Amino acid sequence: MSDLYAVADFCLIPIGTGNTSVAEEVAECQRVLAQSGLTYKMHGYGTNIEGPWSKVSQAIHDCHAAVHAKGSQRIATDIRIGTRIDRQISTGEGNVGKVARVEEILAKDS
Amino acid sequence: MSDLYAVADFCLIPIGTGNTSVAEEVAECQRVLAQSGLTYKMHGYGTNIEGPWSKVSQAIHDCHAAVHAKGSQRIATDIRIGTRIDRQISTGEGNVGKVARVEEILAKDS
Amino acid sequence: MSDLYAVADFCLIPIGTGNTSVAEEVAECQRVLAQSGLTYKMHGYGTNIEGPWSKVSQAIHDCHAAVHAKGSQRIATDIRIGTRIDRQISTGEGNVGKVARVEEILAKDS
Amino acid sequence: MSDLYAVADFCLIPIGTGNTSVAEEVAECQRVLAQSGLTYKMHGYGTNIEGPWSKVSQAIHDCHAAVHAKGSQRIATDIRIGTRIDRQISTGEGNVGKVARVEEILAKDS
Repeated sequence: MSDLYAVADFCLIPIGTGNTSVAEEVAECQRVLAQSGLTYKMHGYGTNIEGPWSKVSQAIHDCHAAVHAKGSQRIATDIRIGTRIDRQISTGEGNVGKVARVEEILAKDS
Repeated sequence: MSDLYAVADFCLIPIGTGNTSVAEEVAECQRVLAQSGLTYKMHGYGTNIEGPWSKVSQAIHDCHAAVHAKGSQRIATDIRIGTRIDRQISTGEGNVGKVARVEEILAKDS
Repeated sequence: MSDLYAVADFCLIPIGTGNTSVAEEVAECQRVLAQSGLTYKMHGYGTNIEGPWSKVSQAIHDCHAAVHAKGSQRIATDIRIGTRIDRQISTGEGNVGKVARVEEILAKDS
Repeated sequence: MSDLYAVADFCLIPIGTGNTSVAEEVAECQRVLAQSGLTYKMHGYGTNIEGPWSKVSQAIHDCHAAVHAKGSQRIATDIRIGTRIDRQISTGEGNVGKVARVEEILAKDS
């Protein structure tokens, strides 16, 4: 089947590292994403990412592979992923577009 | 990179259908999964699924495609996905194995 | 505001334990839930739970507190939680009801 | 038990509205959060929020109640929520602190 355009967000957690900080592992993911060619943006509890479904999935897989290579024996990730066919999303503008539309509505409140 | 074995769970939600029931869409996903060759099991708030990462991702993508084909214009899914390199998981036994180990521990309580 | 009835599912992950197994922590959660009076059921990647929103939230909080007390310094949990006002859910029957409706649909396929 | 400090993120989805846009509902949540007294910040696929567990949970509950009051008959939310006892988190600085630590690490790369 065709590759749907996916607007997503993920939060990766290494398990069994003996270290309560996960910053090194999250930084490693950012390095992987920088190589992916996809649009992404880290926030306080995850990273927004979007692109063709197969590429988004591959990028998150490669984050797991890279974090395993750094020594984490087990990893759990939560992914939120959305697709739509009612309209075309301009590449890389799915997540920022969603925020913009909410802010437009809120701007009318005052 | 190699294809990590993924033990996962997902919950798909159609948006904008005008129907508060999502049972038809979840049923359509079960039909897609039945064709996937992967091990899966529905529960009250999602479906356990496991296999090579790329195949798990493709199966969930194909659920989106099938639910779109049934008329849902927008879909949002939450995926929990885990990988580990400390030991080999026998194909199809990741999720049941996790439950079994917890039940063994609890069995010693009484 | 009133306390909405919540049909939920959660997956708790201890961080920094130095142990790739999370079975002891999940077992501890099951003990906490057994004391909560709520309907719950473990599956391969989480636990279904339902009841008044405040009680579901308190039960998951108390799982965190109990797992911290067992030594985990940091914990991350993913919660899926749903509410509805289109119809009344019989106490404890939200998650099983959802599975039953999907199975009814699939039963007509053959 | 005591009320753990929770660093969280949530993504609320209305079901059965007959509208593929969820911007009005997300905007309504932002209005509820503005009244909550908690630190929060919207991003492309959810909203960071933190504070005492009970207050974070109540705020998300009240988002559900407000979105129901606007007409959504069913709502599903995904929550990521974390607690830690290895160190004190300054109120409202959990999520920004996490981003800052990752950025410090990445800054050393170049």
